[in-house]
Amino acid sequence: MIVLFTDFGLEGPYTGQVKAVFYQAAPGVPIVELFADAPAGQPKPAAYLLAAYGLWFPPGTVLFAVIDPGVGSKRGALIVEAEGRWYVGPDNGLFELVIRRAASARTWDILWRPEELSASFHGRDLFAPVAAQVARGELPSHMPREATIGRRTDWPDDLAEIVYIDRYGNAMTGLRAALLPASGRLTVCGRVLKRARTFSDVPPGDAFWYENSNGLAEIALNGGRAVEALGLVIGSAVATDC
Amino acid sequence: MIVLFTDFGLEGPYTGQVKAVFYQAAPGVPIVELFADAPAGQPKPAAYLLAAYGLWFPPGTVLFAVIDPGVGSKRGALIVEAEGRWYVGPDNGLFELVIRRAASARTWDILWRPEELSASFHGRDLFAPVAAQVARGELPSHMPREATIGRRTDWPDDLAEIVYIDRYGNAMTGLRAALLPASGRLTVCGRVLKRARTFSDVPPGDAFWYENSNGLAEIALNGGRAVEALGLVIGSAVATDC
Amino acid sequence: MIVLFTDFGLEGPYTGQVKAVFYQAAPGVPIVELFADAPAGQPKPAAYLLAAYGLWFPPGTVLFAVIDPGVGSKRGALIVEAEGRWYVGPDNGLFELVIRRAASARTWDILWRPEELSASFHGRDLFAPVAAQVARGELPSHMPREATIGRRTDWPDDLAEIVYIDRYGNAMTGLRAALLPASGRLTVCGRVLKRARTFSDVPPGDAFWYENSNGLAEIALNGGRAVEALGLVIGSAVATDC
Repeated sequence: MIVLFTDFGLEGPYTGQVKAVFYQAAPGVPIVELFADAPAGQPKPAAYLLAAYGLWFPPGTVLFAVIDPGVGSKRGALIVEAEGRWYVGPDNGLFELVIRRAASARTWDILWRPEELSASFHGRDLFAPVAAQVARGELPSHMPREATIGRRTDWPDDLAEIVYIDRYGNAMTGLRAALLPASGRLTVCGRVLKRARTFSDVPPGDAFWYENSNGLAEIALNGGRAVEALGLVIGSAVATDC
Repeated sequence: MIVLFTDFGLEGPYTGQVKAVFYQAAPGVPIVELFADAPAGQPKPAAYLLAAYGLWFPPGTVLFAVIDPGVGSKRGALIVEAEGRWYVGPDNGLFELVIRRAASARTWDILWRPEELSASFHGRDLFAPVAAQVARGELPSHMPREATIGRRTDWPDDLAEIVYIDRYGNAMTGLRAALLPASGRLTVCGRVLKRARTFSDVPPGDAFWYENSNGLAEIALNGGRAVEALGLVIGSAVATDC
Repeated sequence: MIVLFTDFGLEGPYTGQVKAVFYQAAPGVPIVELFADAPAGQPKPAAYLLAAYGLWFPPGTVLFAVIDPGVGSKRGALIVEAEGRWYVGPDNGLFELVIRRAASARTWDILWRPEELSASFHGRDLFAPVAAQVARGELPSHMPREATIGRRTDWPDDLAEIVYIDRYGNAMTGLRAALLPASGRLTVCGRVLKRARTFSDVPPGDAFWYENSNGLAEIALNGGRAVEALGLVIGSAVATDC
């Protein structure tokens, strides 16, 4: 299974062209569009989202993860294997939390380059052919990378910020709920929110936070949109109890 | 064929995770995203939309229909077979019109529960594995349900409201056009609309209604967006001639 | 491979029903959603977009191209073969640039009509079954068309207008970058823009134009959205240097 984690959107040409590469270079492999609206051009919040959602997929999955504001510059290109899952994408911190949280992980620099490499769409021209090859069980021309090179050791283990806003107006944080106190509160944009199990456990109109279906602390509002009610955006700071 | 009828959206993680379940549990079965923007959290208008669009698919189709505002509460989970098509989703009225309009229908309560059931995403954890099993020709642990239990007999046979707004700004009603007079008018938000066969049959700028490609009465405007021009929203009342 | 080029959107029922036709009538053929947001109801700008993006696909690809404001009227239905790629859609100029730029091209009028043809959704009822048949290597009932019939000879070879706006706020023109001077400028909405290779080659906040990954001249802004910053819409005129 190939899983797409991008900021490409679905309606325009970008995801379609990437899928066309996969259909040709890895025929018969199912393709799942996991996120086409990951934080646009922001590898840091995206890294916490990817680490949380990648874990849900079975070993052997290839995650095509491309949030690539540096496309066209000299940033590197990586393959990461972490606990049996494969990740392919740019070297900009996107895989930092995947690697840090894995019991075992290996990283390779991608040396292979296509004959035709556009300046603005490495997702299609570079990363998709590489991910297709990985899905076929092969590695393109590569070089093992030292585990300490290019790491974002200054990034926290959990990110106390909003990292994703979904279509219902719920806001995911970069905090793993399992690491927060059972009765812990979150403060965001001046509002103190209690923890609940799910929507139906709070009165209509109340904002709260809960552990979402992939383990992240998520801010919601029963019967409404938390994002507008609380004024949340990607990057809004979230404070835990002291 | 597995058909998705949800309010999950396509760009976020929800549809992608559901498709990943299907690719693993029902490999090789084509998946069609019919609606990812059915009325969010509103099973009643969604029920009229589902009844109209489900009929278009051939017998044997499995419709994964999840509009589930009660997720996490104790609402039941159903499998419905109606004229050879299978429906899987929550027990909240979503299948009322499918059952009522079918020459024959059977309903089962889903007793099976997954080992891991998140509080907020039964679409992925409960309904998708069940729908995959149905697509493989099996039924999970279940119990036949009396035909009269849990029915929404107070809901009308046709819903005189807007039930869906499409990307062109057209507004579908919950009324079957075949049951309306050939020269009947619809009144909505103070505007009286004549029937036409299609867009090119009315002058540019004129609002009208017509039988859409799945048999629903739909309100449109030639060369523009009826929704903004007429101020329509999901739930706007529609009046037929007396 | 079947490639969808439409203004149908992905979330509503239209693309889903078209894909359901393909899954039944051309089983096993991969389907790529290239554009679901091509210029709505505007065959002229769409024709320049299609000509640029169709070329990227390998010979044998079937492009289902439906921008069809005249649906329900008497406009014709076409199959075009151009340099080994097949195009199916309405006779409204959508294939003008594909044909004009091809070394060799053939056009057929589609005579076949389905038993049930809705007034408003020929994409599903007429063009999808035809495209499926073409994908299976057959032609439905047809009649060769003279190369000069129905052509839009008054349309320019390149269109000096905005033809598409992507999710990042970049604006594609209908101009092929390879035909513009290497140091040429574009003027749009009163702003004179220099050419750059890609985003990282200009200072943050600067608007510029570049050759996009499919050869069109595209207007962008490093670190922001060109569309709002410059006030661009589909149809905005673009001027090249004299």
